[in-house]
Amino acid sequence: MTDQPMSHDNLKSLSAQDVRTAIRDGKYFGHTSGLAAGKLQCNLAILPERYALDFLRFCLRNPKPCPVVGVSETGDPYLPTLGRDIDIRHDVSRYRVFRDGQLVDEPSNLQELWSDDLVSVALGCSFTFENALVRHGLPVRHMETGQNVPMYRSNIDLAPAGPFGGKMVITMRPIPADQVKDAYEISGRYPQAHGAPIAHGNPSDVGITDISKPDWGEAVEVRAGEVPVYWACGVTPQNVLLDAKLPICITHSPGHMLIADVAEDAETTILTTT
Amino acid sequence: MTDQPMSHDNLKSLSAQDVRTAIRDGKYFGHTSGLAAGKLQCNLAILPERYALDFLRFCLRNPKPCPVVGVSETGDPYLPTLGRDIDIRHDVSRYRVFRDGQLVDEPSNLQELWSDDLVSVALGCSFTFENALVRHGLPVRHMETGQNVPMYRSNIDLAPAGPFGGKMVITMRPIPADQVKDAYEISGRYPQAHGAPIAHGNPSDVGITDISKPDWGEAVEVRAGEVPVYWACGVTPQNVLLDAKLPICITHSPGHMLIADVAEDAETTILTTT
Repeated sequence: MTDQPMSHDNLKSLSAQDVRTAIRDGKYFGHTSGLAAGKLQCNLAILPERYALDFLRFCLRNPKPCPVVGVSETGDPYLPTLGRDIDIRHDVSRYRVFRDGQLVDEPSNLQELWSDDLVSVALGCSFTFENALVRHGLPVRHMETGQNVPMYRSNIDLAPAGPFGGKMVITMRPIPADQVKDAYEISGRYPQAHGAPIAHGNPSDVGITDISKPDWGEAVEVRAGEVPVYWACGVTPQNVLLDAKLPICITHSPGHMLIADVAEDAETTILTTT
Repeated sequence: MTDQPMSHDNLKSLSAQDVRTAIRDGKYFGHTSGLAAGKLQCNLAILPERYALDFLRFCLRNPKPCPVVGVSETGDPYLPTLGRDIDIRHDVSRYRVFRDGQLVDEPSNLQELWSDDLVSVALGCSFTFENALVRHGLPVRHMETGQNVPMYRSNIDLAPAGPFGGKMVITMRPIPADQVKDAYEISGRYPQAHGAPIAHGNPSDVGITDISKPDWGEAVEVRAGEVPVYWACGVTPQNVLLDAKLPICITHSPGHMLIADVAEDAETTILTTT
């Protein structure tokens, strides 16, 4: 590698570990969509140990929006079950730091913020099933148009745990009516990445009042013959963490995921070093 | 229901909730194999809250032997995500109580042992994939012969967490050579119940010195043309809990599982009340 900053295109042919190294070395600060093809990418939540048991209970009770794929020891910045030498203080290209539920900083490393009482929780992300949909010839509209997926605050209650609870955030992808069943079947193979859709059809059934006005991301067109299909979204745990107003919590910045060495279609998300 | 004790045969036609009621009312103390057909049955671990975070980390890092399907609030004996009105103090037919790693009692309820600092963790069990194998026409030898499945302490290291670690316990089922691939495929659909096998073939590869001498359960015949196939076993977390010598921990008694209202082939193990 050079000492120069690297572009998304520069990184496309690199392994997961080499992408992480480029990020760790301060050569890349961008999003990770399309990088390290075939490897699991993860949402990230870092929080003080005293909230970790409740947060894990919350995730285990809401496995579709919050599929846990890795969890660190307290105070240990490494995540050996997800990848070789993953240092969570450096290996994500952009973080968000929240205090009492307010965004206070968006740093490119956690060197000065890391402390002995922090626990890292990695959660599966929709890239995994989107890649599978595309491999099977299903359209993924926001990928075709280069947009961010539309996300909506739904009317679906989460199973609470301790200070964590609220409503599920969902994504929407328009799918041709005759491929909706395939979309369920294909994404359902990835329980570590939100699994099968939560619902499809009428937006008001899931609490969406105007599908052209997502709460996050960008609206995409639903064409004639297409059905809006709704999946549980990894923004759910981030939202829930904000609402809980923890004294501190840290997440990845949207689209700037943690890239693991685990294959995205592996049976489990535990790295087996054979 | 009558006030009389009930036999396994009496219970066979009852719903999961009615079986739990019979157990709660002290009318049944037996094993749960074959009861509440189609419903998820669970291994059970109850431990003080101060060990719960490490135990969940341990389970999440070892999802094949330790698939978490439910977890309670601290001190709350109910498990609403697994079933209606499940009271973990009464709804298992036989428990085992361990203090400092020693079995000290095998009660039929936890009325006097329950305390405000206990957390219940329910884990998937092999009944789920065994039923699926049988439905697909694969032989399950120990079920055919009415034996307990043979279990072995393997040479496979578990990913440790806090005081929890050691070697994986595995089960063995002989499968005709031409159906081994099917066995992987079918059981692989049940990640909440140990998933696909860990290995197959040579017993010494997984650390078994004499396949006719299991560490727990009973030996079964491996016939000509059959291959020994090894799955991760739910005795693993029990063993790990014992080795950790907690001041107190409580499990179900082998074969006396917690019966949930969740379907054993549901996408998640979270009860949806629709």
